[in-house]
Amino acid sequence: MTTMQRIDAYWRAANYLSVGQIYLRDNPLLAEPLKPEHVKPRLLGHWGTTPGLNFTFAHLNRIIAERQQEMMYVVGPGHGGPAAVAHAWLEGSYSKKYPEISQDAAGMRRLFRQFSFPGGIPSHVAPETPGSIHEGGELGYSLAHAYGAAFDNPRLVVACVVGDGEAETGPLAASWHSNKFLDPYRDGVVLPILHLNGYKIANPAVLARIPEDELVKLMEGYGYHPQIVGPSHEEMAGTLDTVFDQIASYKDGRSARLPMIILRTPKGWTGPREVDGLPVEGTWRAHQVPLSGIQDNPEHLAMLEEWLRSYRPEELFDAEGRPVPALLQTVPEGPLRMSASPHANGGELLAPLTLPDFRDYSVEVKSPAAQSTEPTRVLGVFLRDVIAANPRTFRLMGPDETASNRPQAVFDTTDRAWNAEIKPTDEHLAAGGRVMEVLSEHLCQGWLEGYLLTGRHGLFNCYEAFIHIIDAMFNQHAKWLETAKKIAWRRPVASLNYLLSSHVWRQDHNGFSHQDPGFLDVVVNKKAEVVRVYLPPDANTLLSVGDHCLRSHDYVNVIVAGKQPVLDLFTMEEAIAHNTRGLGILPWASTDQGLEPDVVLACAGDVPTLETLAAAALLREHLPEFKVRVVNVVDLMRLQPPSEHPHGMPDAEFDTLFTTDKPVIFNFHGYPWLIHRLTYRRRGHANLHVRGYKEEGTTTTPFDMAMLNDIDRYHLVMDVIDRVPGLRTTAAHLRQQMSDARLQARAYTREHGEDPAEIRNWSWS
Amino acid sequence: MTTMQRIDAYWRAANYLSVGQIYLRDNPLLAEPLKPEHVKPRLLGHWGTTPGLNFTFAHLNRIIAERQQEMMYVVGPGHGGPAAVAHAWLEGSYSKKYPEISQDAAGMRRLFRQFSFPGGIPSHVAPETPGSIHEGGELGYSLAHAYGAAFDNPRLVVACVVGDGEAETGPLAASWHSNKFLDPYRDGVVLPILHLNGYKIANPAVLARIPEDELVKLMEGYGYHPQIVGPSHEEMAGTLDTVFDQIASYKDGRSARLPMIILRTPKGWTGPREVDGLPVEGTWRAHQVPLSGIQDNPEHLAMLEEWLRSYRPEELFDAEGRPVPALLQTVPEGPLRMSASPHANGGELLAPLTLPDFRDYSVEVKSPAAQSTEPTRVLGVFLRDVIAANPRTFRLMGPDETASNRPQAVFDTTDRAWNAEIKPTDEHLAAGGRVMEVLSEHLCQGWLEGYLLTGRHGLFNCYEAFIHIIDAMFNQHAKWLETAKKIAWRRPVASLNYLLSSHVWRQDHNGFSHQDPGFLDVVVNKKAEVVRVYLPPDANTLLSVGDHCLRSHDYVNVIVAGKQPVLDLFTMEEAIAHNTRGLGILPWASTDQGLEPDVVLACAGDVPTLETLAAAALLREHLPEFKVRVVNVVDLMRLQPPSEHPHGMPDAEFDTLFTTDKPVIFNFHGYPWLIHRLTYRRRGHANLHVRGYKEEGTTTTPFDMAMLNDIDRYHLVMDVIDRVPGLRTTAAHLRQQMSDARLQARAYTREHGEDPAEIRNWSWS
Repeated sequence: MTTMQRIDAYWRAANYLSVGQIYLRDNPLLAEPLKPEHVKPRLLGHWGTTPGLNFTFAHLNRIIAERQQEMMYVVGPGHGGPAAVAHAWLEGSYSKKYPEISQDAAGMRRLFRQFSFPGGIPSHVAPETPGSIHEGGELGYSLAHAYGAAFDNPRLVVACVVGDGEAETGPLAASWHSNKFLDPYRDGVVLPILHLNGYKIANPAVLARIPEDELVKLMEGYGYHPQIVGPSHEEMAGTLDTVFDQIASYKDGRSARLPMIILRTPKGWTGPREVDGLPVEGTWRAHQVPLSGIQDNPEHLAMLEEWLRSYRPEELFDAEGRPVPALLQTVPEGPLRMSASPHANGGELLAPLTLPDFRDYSVEVKSPAAQSTEPTRVLGVFLRDVIAANPRTFRLMGPDETASNRPQAVFDTTDRAWNAEIKPTDEHLAAGGRVMEVLSEHLCQGWLEGYLLTGRHGLFNCYEAFIHIIDAMFNQHAKWLETAKKIAWRRPVASLNYLLSSHVWRQDHNGFSHQDPGFLDVVVNKKAEVVRVYLPPDANTLLSVGDHCLRSHDYVNVIVAGKQPVLDLFTMEEAIAHNTRGLGILPWASTDQGLEPDVVLACAGDVPTLETLAAAALLREHLPEFKVRVVNVVDLMRLQPPSEHPHGMPDAEFDTLFTTDKPVIFNFHGYPWLIHRLTYRRRGHANLHVRGYKEEGTTTTPFDMAMLNDIDRYHLVMDVIDRVPGLRTTAAHLRQQMSDARLQARAYTREHGEDPAEIRNWSWS
Repeated sequence: MTTMQRIDAYWRAANYLSVGQIYLRDNPLLAEPLKPEHVKPRLLGHWGTTPGLNFTFAHLNRIIAERQQEMMYVVGPGHGGPAAVAHAWLEGSYSKKYPEISQDAAGMRRLFRQFSFPGGIPSHVAPETPGSIHEGGELGYSLAHAYGAAFDNPRLVVACVVGDGEAETGPLAASWHSNKFLDPYRDGVVLPILHLNGYKIANPAVLARIPEDELVKLMEGYGYHPQIVGPSHEEMAGTLDTVFDQIASYKDGRSARLPMIILRTPKGWTGPREVDGLPVEGTWRAHQVPLSGIQDNPEHLAMLEEWLRSYRPEELFDAEGRPVPALLQTVPEGPLRMSASPHANGGELLAPLTLPDFRDYSVEVKSPAAQSTEPTRVLGVFLRDVIAANPRTFRLMGPDETASNRPQAVFDTTDRAWNAEIKPTDEHLAAGGRVMEVLSEHLCQGWLEGYLLTGRHGLFNCYEAFIHIIDAMFNQHAKWLETAKKIAWRRPVASLNYLLSSHVWRQDHNGFSHQDPGFLDVVVNKKAEVVRVYLPPDANTLLSVGDHCLRSHDYVNVIVAGKQPVLDLFTMEEAIAHNTRGLGILPWASTDQGLEPDVVLACAGDVPTLETLAAAALLREHLPEFKVRVVNVVDLMRLQPPSEHPHGMPDAEFDTLFTTDKPVIFNFHGYPWLIHRLTYRRRGHANLHVRGYKEEGTTTTPFDMAMLNDIDRYHLVMDVIDRVPGLRTTAAHLRQQMSDARLQARAYTREHGEDPAEIRNWSWS
């Protein structure tokens, strides 16, 4: 057999196994004529993209073997799950991970049966698929994931198949420019393979229907050398030889430009040409299951058998169902097999970060709430040293907001990754920079996901409102983690850490479009096992939370923290204790002296905490006999019952802290109903009154923002008076005073364009 | 004065007014030397992009006047709010909308003072800005908005400035391809102006730092004729003449390709060259406020005065502060002024849809829950006739899912919009198609927003899980509506209607990545005045809801409806009555005979309703004396108190329907806690037990999906037994029977790959 013949045999085998997965529940080797009962009753799967994926697999294997090239495979058209599974089975890594799916007829039968079958495996490339870091269900992220995998893996080539449907998405369209952020020396290479099979579900794909010279210009405009390949083994093999020579040139500095491949094949290639008089191969009709109703349609059954036999399975598998030796010769060895790449099970490669002692970065706090610090700036100093101590395994992502969000001390030790023109007036740009800044939350998220899933660490800092841009990507990553946790061979990966700053309460300068704290509501919809939410109220609590998150695995950690100066509340020792509990009483701000309070003022988030403290001070001043307990919540998940979240607080503790019968005025960073959602099972829930962002805002002053949403100190005092029995009468004067103070503050602000000095400079005393 | 001199004067005036807005609260004409007290205490705004926007405004005005060209202006770098405001003031339309901001010195003082000032206007282009349909706070959507505005406006040119920062976002990168969906005859034209000022907040922009030939190829690859312009009046004027000639060629069919402009100017052009020894003009330092700390820094104060005077205000405004006649000569007349374009206040142009009578599309229902229909397919027939009756004012958007979501009858009357190659095997592709399909939820959403805000109608059909992709865009549109409602001169626009189908419960074939009902949680965070959520359980209720939504204004309507066959529950008359109430008892499924029930089975969503009915049938069969009330909820907002939502149900009615003391088992389409969030204030809330999606799923059968999440009929019966006092003892046998039935169903499914026939074929009898 020639090499081309071996590749063709491998391709036929992968196609056979793919069709088998979609259709068969028995008779896997076609040892007997195909009967209706051999076919699954529900036919689920996506044939259209699959033969092209198999074609690419087969050819890349030759390159891997010939060049001993470390390679990963990212399958953008993840609907083509059967292809990745077939490949892993042929390479033997499927049976290694799942011994019951053995590399023989019995295993092949189980392989076919389990696909898209209850109790079996999903129809897409998924966490269950060996060799994958990318679930292709929600399209658009393959190329960003591929680049994320390539960063800091200098010997790796990530082959990334981009579907022509996926290529229409925004995130994918932006991802091509990732090459401007790649370091030829420290990073690996991504080889994009744009697979033009011409159709989406029911439509032609845009890039398949523009003139070829336009498509070539587009790819050149994105900074690649495009190579066009038709549906031919010889063309594909020749092009791959050229392309990998070009990659070698890039790696040793002879060329600055990376290649990419435009592969044109028919959709549903090698499948039925025509079904019921309508063309199928090469049209959108091949997208899912080209032949249906097989159990009741003998003609379709015969066509399915003919289709399966067209791959000549008898040449590909021996009588026991094992792949014949010629096939296995084309398979690379050990970890060079793409389905066995250790990068695709990143937890195997994961090394803990070398972390400096976060206590060394503490702010000195002699008395609580007496001085102010910018929390994210302090965290930045810690992150600077995290970067320095982990020069190849940690990256900081941000959509051009790292300086704006103020962890900018990182630029003392590193730069922004940049591999395009640099001008003399630029600062902190370099190919090897550890800070990834691009004005695309999608790219930041996609790169980071790819980086984490291949066994590294990172943090994504973002304006709070705009993190909603990646809600859907967060969802998919959380789902990946939820599933991966159940798969024995998937090792834990580093958590995906968000630092959300420039938050709703301090976007007073950018206005309404920049004010949205609702990402938390999206996050808590995902399984409790994978989500954590922290709202550290000051610099020391932020440091401690940050350290904690960087050490964790398999979570999504959301940290919301301010960049503007906020009062320092805790010494580092106190901060650690407070964070360990996740919530607690601020004794110095409380007047209940350990006794049953008259009211609980609870708070979560820096600005709401500030206003709560100011309200507590007003109550102390004006109602000195009145017993106030101030409770700050850092770890939001503590509010849930233990049955709902692993961090959940037992009812008895919750009741002790919040009482069961006293009014609780909860001043919250986000939309107020989230607190109700987390606490509705608690005994004292009916006494809970939550203030938070109620979608009021514009360009104004910080205190006016608080007043617009009734989370300000004066309104909190009014809330207390309204809700504590009897106070409405005895404290009527104070209530009026508070109401007047609001009007005065507003009038001052409208006149002077800034908050009154006593608000701006307020501290605890 | 030559034309160029007049343009330059206009530009200087706009720049002067822009700087004035950012800095001044008094002394607007610099009638006296600038003093600290003339300057605002908080300096908020974005200078960097502003002079380039003003430059473009000034030059486009000449074209409008010379060619009497109807034109709109979409400002991608919306941070440059001062530019759009300055322009509207110079054109007189600002004073028209806001008479107190008169076109004189007093008005100019107010104009300056109000900008980014408490009680004033936002710092960005916003709903408050005359002539705008685009808030540029969250970047990435300008070009999609521009195309949406151009559709079905054949005489309109939408000039769209794309910032080089924004150009890095995914949605923008995909939007360039919108030209493949434009009909040269029926649609207008978009003129993209890629503004390369070189920098984002703190970084260079990618497109400004790639080789120019690469950038040109990129734009050619996107299908445009790029024209490069430097910072020169002559170049810009000459290029615009060429470009508008090219547009004329395109419009009359002589050319198939549209032009676009690449405009290179320094960032912060005409601003301070250097501040405190660091370069500012032409660098990222010009992004926001180039000179700060002015009140304490006499040198900066002097620089500000010098900067302002560099525009020679004395030549631009007369002693009363009115623009001099030469300036006004450059301004187009009446509605040709971009700041007065009626398209930018779309409600002014909005005509109600011509709607066929939705009752004519009813499914005949002789007895409830006896037969099944695919709801979205029925709605499709209605939409077909909506499209036919409104051939220029209604579009259906969908990311390649219109056929998959099954309103495909629309293709009996129209096609998919497509202006690229068409092959003989293609179906329903045409330049004039009313269905917009592109595999980008971002583009669907952006196009529809632009289309609606310019006074037309539409509906976006989408897979439920992937609508999260546009969470952030939904947020911004909802915020636009929230703000626009408060602005007297903004007329109501058609609602943004979502039809979410292929939902969580019937994505059993695609698996976990396609299962996410959480968009509702995002939606209800926005102000109650603008959001509506409907879960019609069958075809007739869907028709009635659909008709209702298409008639509404200024809302975001979310309709969740299945595409798979579901039982028909209501005759059309009953459906209308049910929808009018928004929720109600299904008497035929209930056994409480109008008396106090023992349990309430509530449900919202088609699959949860089906399972609830089946549970009611099981209870009727096995516990015939037991009184069950079945309540279906269509209008989710009815569950809230009237204080929280205009649709909210008074407590007395709620209590009558749900009781205050009986267990309520609520089977919900989405994440269960949303129901708790909406009902936590209700008296009977402690008795409410909600089932819903709890993030369990994979590729499996429909009933297995229900069982995985405990929303299945058997589990509901078990829930009833567990929660009704005494039943756990008296109905212990039934409980065991239900538990066994679940195990049997699961075992059957695992064995046969489909649900048991009695589940698949279940109906009410």
